[in-house]
Amino acid sequence: MLHKQHQQLIEALQSCIVACNHCYDACLKEEDIQMMAGCIRLDRECAEICSYLAQALCRDTPFTAELASVCAAICEACGNECRQHDHEHCQKCADACFQCAEACKKIA
Amino acid sequence: MLHKQHQQLIEALQSCIVACNHCYDACLKEEDIQMMAGCIRLDRECAEICSYLAQALCRDTPFTAELASVCAAICEACGNECRQHDHEHCQKCADACFQCAEACKKIA
Amino acid sequence: MLHKQHQQLIEALQSCIVACNHCYDACLKEEDIQMMAGCIRLDRECAEICSYLAQALCRDTPFTAELASVCAAICEACGNECRQHDHEHCQKCADACFQCAEACKKIA
Amino acid sequence: MLHKQHQQLIEALQSCIVACNHCYDACLKEEDIQMMAGCIRLDRECAEICSYLAQALCRDTPFTAELASVCAAICEACGNECRQHDHEHCQKCADACFQCAEACKKIA
Repeated sequence: MLHKQHQQLIEALQSCIVACNHCYDACLKEEDIQMMAGCIRLDRECAEICSYLAQALCRDTPFTAELASVCAAICEACGNECRQHDHEHCQKCADACFQCAEACKKIA
Repeated sequence: MLHKQHQQLIEALQSCIVACNHCYDACLKEEDIQMMAGCIRLDRECAEICSYLAQALCRDTPFTAELASVCAAICEACGNECRQHDHEHCQKCADACFQCAEACKKIA
Repeated sequence: MLHKQHQQLIEALQSCIVACNHCYDACLKEEDIQMMAGCIRLDRECAEICSYLAQALCRDTPFTAELASVCAAICEACGNECRQHDHEHCQKCADACFQCAEACKKIA
Repeated sequence: MLHKQHQQLIEALQSCIVACNHCYDACLKEEDIQMMAGCIRLDRECAEICSYLAQALCRDTPFTAELASVCAAICEACGNECRQHDHEHCQKCADACFQCAEACKKIA
C-alpha cells in the first residue's frame, strides 16, 4: 500500500510526463523552433526522469530521497525554461513541472 | 490536442504501470517467491513497455500501431500469468493488464 | 550465456543509442534546426526503443522477435531521415541505424 | 565530441547494464530465489539508472553531476548486495557495478 504522499507524487509525475512530452512535440512544430531548442531538450530530460521516478516509487525503491531530489532539480529547470515562452503548451508544461517539483521536494 | 482514444489509452497505460510495479514489489516480498518468478519477470516487462508507449504516444510517435500491438501482447501475457495467482496484487494487476491490452488493441 | 547473435545485436544497439543521442544533441545546436525537426524526433524514438530492447535482450525477454521487429522499423525510419542530411553526425547516425536494423532483422 | 572521461563512463555504464540484467535473469532461475530477492530488486534499479545516465550523457544533459552521483550510490548498493552471493553472475555483476560506481564518481 502506498503512502498518500507517494500517491500524490505519482500523480504529479504522470501529469508532468504528459505535459513535457506534449510540449516537446508542440515545440518541434513551432515556426520559431530555434528559440525552443532549450525547451525541447529540457522537456525530454524532465519527462524521462519523471518516468523513471514514477516507476521506481511504485516498486518501492530504496533510493526515493536521492531520486526525488534530482527530479525536483530537473523539473524546476524545465519549468523555468518553459515559463519564458508564451506558447500555451509551454505555460501548461511550466505549471506541471513546478507542481511536480514541489511534490518531489516533500519526499526528498 | 490528443484524440479521446489516445487519452483513454494513456490512462490505461498509467494504471497498468502502477499495478505492475506494485505487483512486482509485492511478489518479491511473498513467501512462495519461487512460484512468482514468472510474474516478477512479466511485471517488469509490462511496466517498461507501457511506460515507453505512454511517453511515445504523448510525443506523437509515428509508430503508434506497431508499438501498441507489441504492448497489447505483453499486457496479455502478464495478465494471463497474474490471473493464475490468488494474491490480491496479482488479481488487481491482471485486471489492469487486460484493460490496457484492450485499449492498446483499439489503436493497434 | 548469450547466443553470439544476441551479443552482436546488443553491441549494435549500444552503438545506435550513442549515435542517435549524439545526433539529437548536435541537431539541436545546428543553425538550420527547422530542417532537423524530423531528425531530432526520430533520433529520440530510435535511442529509446534501442535502449529498451538492449535491456530486454539481456534479461532474456520472451518477446524478442516482436520487439526486434518494431526496433528494426524505427531504426530504418531514423536511418532514412538522417541519410538525407549532410551533417557528419547525421551520416554517422544513419550508418549506426542501418547496421542496427540489420542486426534486429536477424532476430525478428 | 565526447570527452574521454565521458566515453569511459559510457562504456562502464553499458557493461553494468548488461551485467545487471544478466544477473537479474539468472537470479530468477536460481533455486534459492528467496535469498536473491534483494539482488533481483537492485539489479533492476541499477540497470535502469545506468541506462538513463548513459543516454543522458550522450545527449549532453546539463545534470551530469547530480545524475552521476545518484547512479554511483545505486551501483555501490547493487555491488555490495551481489558481492555477498557466490553465484558467478553475482560476482561478475558486483565487479561491473563497482567499476561503474568509480567511473560515476569521477564525473559527479
